Amino acid sequence: MDKKRLKKYAELTVKVGANVQKGQGVIINASVDQEEFVALITEEAYRVGAKWVEVQWSSQNVTRLHQNYQTLEQLSKMPHWQEEKHKMMAEELPAMIHILSDDPDGLNGVDQEKMQKSNAARRKIVKKYRDAMENRHQWTIVAAPSKAWAKKVFPGLTCAKAKDQLWEAILQTVRVDKSNDPIEAWAEHNRNFQEKCKVLTEYDFDRLHYTSSNGTDFTVWLIPHARWIGGGETALNGVYYNPNMPTEEIFTSPMKGKAEGKLVSTKPLSYQGQLIEDFSITFEAGKAVEWEARKGEDVLGHMIQTDEGSAYLGELALVPYDSPISNAGILFYETLFDENASCHVALGRGFSMALDGFEAMTWEEATNKGINDSLIHVDFMIGSGDLSVDGYTREGKKVTVFHNGNWAL
Amino acid sequence: MDKKRLKKYAELTVKVGANVQKGQGVIINASVDQEEFVALITEEAYRVGAKWVEVQWSSQNVTRLHQNYQTLEQLSKMPHWQEEKHKMMAEELPAMIHILSDDPDGLNGVDQEKMQKSNAARRKIVKKYRDAMENRHQWTIVAAPSKAWAKKVFPGLTCAKAKDQLWEAILQTVRVDKSNDPIEAWAEHNRNFQEKCKVLTEYDFDRLHYTSSNGTDFTVWLIPHARWIGGGETALNGVYYNPNMPTEEIFTSPMKGKAEGKLVSTKPLSYQGQLIEDFSITFEAGKAVEWEARKGEDVLGHMIQTDEGSAYLGELALVPYDSPISNAGILFYETLFDENASCHVALGRGFSMALDGFEAMTWEEATNKGINDSLIHVDFMIGSGDLSVDGYTREGKKVTVFHNGNWAL
Repeated sequence: MDKKRLKKYAELTVKVGANVQKGQGVIINASVDQEEFVALITEEAYRVGAKWVEVQWSSQNVTRLHQNYQTLEQLSKMPHWQEEKHKMMAEELPAMIHILSDDPDGLNGVDQEKMQKSNAARRKIVKKYRDAMENRHQWTIVAAPSKAWAKKVFPGLTCAKAKDQLWEAILQTVRVDKSNDPIEAWAEHNRNFQEKCKVLTEYDFDRLHYTSSNGTDFTVWLIPHARWIGGGETALNGVYYNPNMPTEEIFTSPMKGKAEGKLVSTKPLSYQGQLIEDFSITFEAGKAVEWEARKGEDVLGHMIQTDEGSAYLGELALVPYDSPISNAGILFYETLFDENASCHVALGRGFSMALDGFEAMTWEEATNKGINDSLIHVDFMIGSGDLSVDGYTREGKKVTVFHNGNWAL
Repeated sequence: MDKKRLKKYAELTVKVGANVQKGQGVIINASVDQEEFVALITEEAYRVGAKWVEVQWSSQNVTRLHQNYQTLEQLSKMPHWQEEKHKMMAEELPAMIHILSDDPDGLNGVDQEKMQKSNAARRKIVKKYRDAMENRHQWTIVAAPSKAWAKKVFPGLTCAKAKDQLWEAILQTVRVDKSNDPIEAWAEHNRNFQEKCKVLTEYDFDRLHYTSSNGTDFTVWLIPHARWIGGGETALNGVYYNPNMPTEEIFTSPMKGKAEGKLVSTKPLSYQGQLIEDFSITFEAGKAVEWEARKGEDVLGHMIQTDEGSAYLGELALVPYDSPISNAGILFYETLFDENASCHVALGRGFSMALDGFEAMTWEEATNKGINDSLIHVDFMIGSGDLSVDGYTREGKKVTVFHNGNWAL
């Protein structure tokens, strides 16, 4: 990929994604094979005035060794200095930039239960710091190809060609063309989101009913006056940022404990480095009570049973079947992309910003109003070419929101 | 480089270099381009029973950006969580494995004074923790080629060939052949060191006099009953380890404040990512009072003036001109190798283990006996084909230690 275009992407990540502010700290999470892109982002962050930038490097190969050799007890510990680091983050509120590049199936074979339990234990230790950061700082998730991920998406190509092709696909989806101004393109994209969100929020639906010929038949209830959100968001520090690049979704958090029926997945899901394929989940009183999967059923089961909240929903997201990412016809095996090619829902933690008046609420108050709490938040895809979503207003009026997989409003 | 030989090197690093103990923690310092070798070392460490392994990744490209864009004030700070990490290390005493691979000239052009001052400020913050770790845990420095380093050593070769060639050279110097048992080879190597160290220590020289046709004419006084050390060492936890791989040197720490004359460098020195070439340093009353260099004179000057102790010597090391590394005829531009091809001395911090009875001393007691203290320890090479080193015993007897660059004992 030519360096000029990569630089445009780095600039977009810093200015539109995380919208790094003068004097702010920046933390970049990246895999060790992304040095070139990380250096470009680091330089852009300093150019806009970042006070400091820290890269938290990781290696999936080394992670696999930790998981295989350390005891569950050791893996579940968090050294005191790491807790101090989270504390610093909760106090200083740095902008966070996550670069996804790992092999979606790169931790295949690792003991799921051990990984699940130890990850949950460590998340629990820092939960109070993460809760304290909720909505208060900017963060963004972007992507860059590793060799292994590229080969997964384009198995017929050589490593180098697959990587080039995946770069091309990523840059297309984030609107970084050879000759355009991506920052202007995102301003336009965000304006479109705002209009759609306004319409949906004003309907104030009581519930949504999902149906598809694949077996999906599912009703979920919404929180009164819930906000629909899409594109950029404004953190409580007043800074407008884009948490996901790309993004094509409009979403809200549903009322905890009120959902009935079955959702059938329409794309594979990579969770903690392992793939779950062709699965369905049945809900009763909002809770996942039954599930099955052709591949990765144990991964799915451990995920759903992480904690009390991981069996409940935290997000409903609407994405047209004809979205640009969907139309590219590429299965990315990476939620950041696949979720933006398909209607999806998430198990686990919800978003307090889906509540009217969230700015003045603590996280605890938000959960009392029906936002789900959990250590996890995992999207999975349920969009299809014949998906219908009907909204029912609080006055009982039926409104077709999606028809044949696309917007009907 | 074939994976089998790399695995032998990783095993040697863990078992003979750091000699990682069952139940011990391990910290690996490595550049992001060394994932393959790091993963091999990590697995070996777990195999011998490491409780945990942590990799502290770095990138010279990102370091350059920090140095160029952060203020001196910001660079000089150490976040509280990092100090907590050093505290943990001083308490838990993990084995440390440092993998050198950076471009020896990779930070060329960076503001020397700023880098020097900020590094010194951060080292000062954690000095008490590092002092507390002195002699109490195992550590080892090994090497692996990066593209940039390999091209510096073999500028006429393609990147891939230069890297292969440098791997070959490194593996030769650390005695990892295709068919040998490197662990047995190191046991033999260490036995030879022990014999030589015994002889030198028993002479209990009052002073050494260095002369060479290149202009070196230098006398340095030794601490009474000083120990000469070489090859493996035993940490105070009782574990025998090899701090440097390769190593061909026998060394001690001189008496602070007692050295007169001029030392002329015989190899380039890479310091903080910048090269210093063709330089000389003149000492009076043990202190560097004059210096000049054809290249990197300001780097040299800033280094010598880091703190009070950085103008005094911390090490004298004897290496025959005909050492295996020297005979390989390769200029590595990397002190770990070049110091083992040449007699050298170090400016800065000395070794308390050079003192008779060091096991029962604090660091402060060691400095009171004449061991130099500083935030830095930087070796530079002074060995040549006609270097003579004469020892004078406390009874006034002259003993030729080195003649024409080689052992004369």
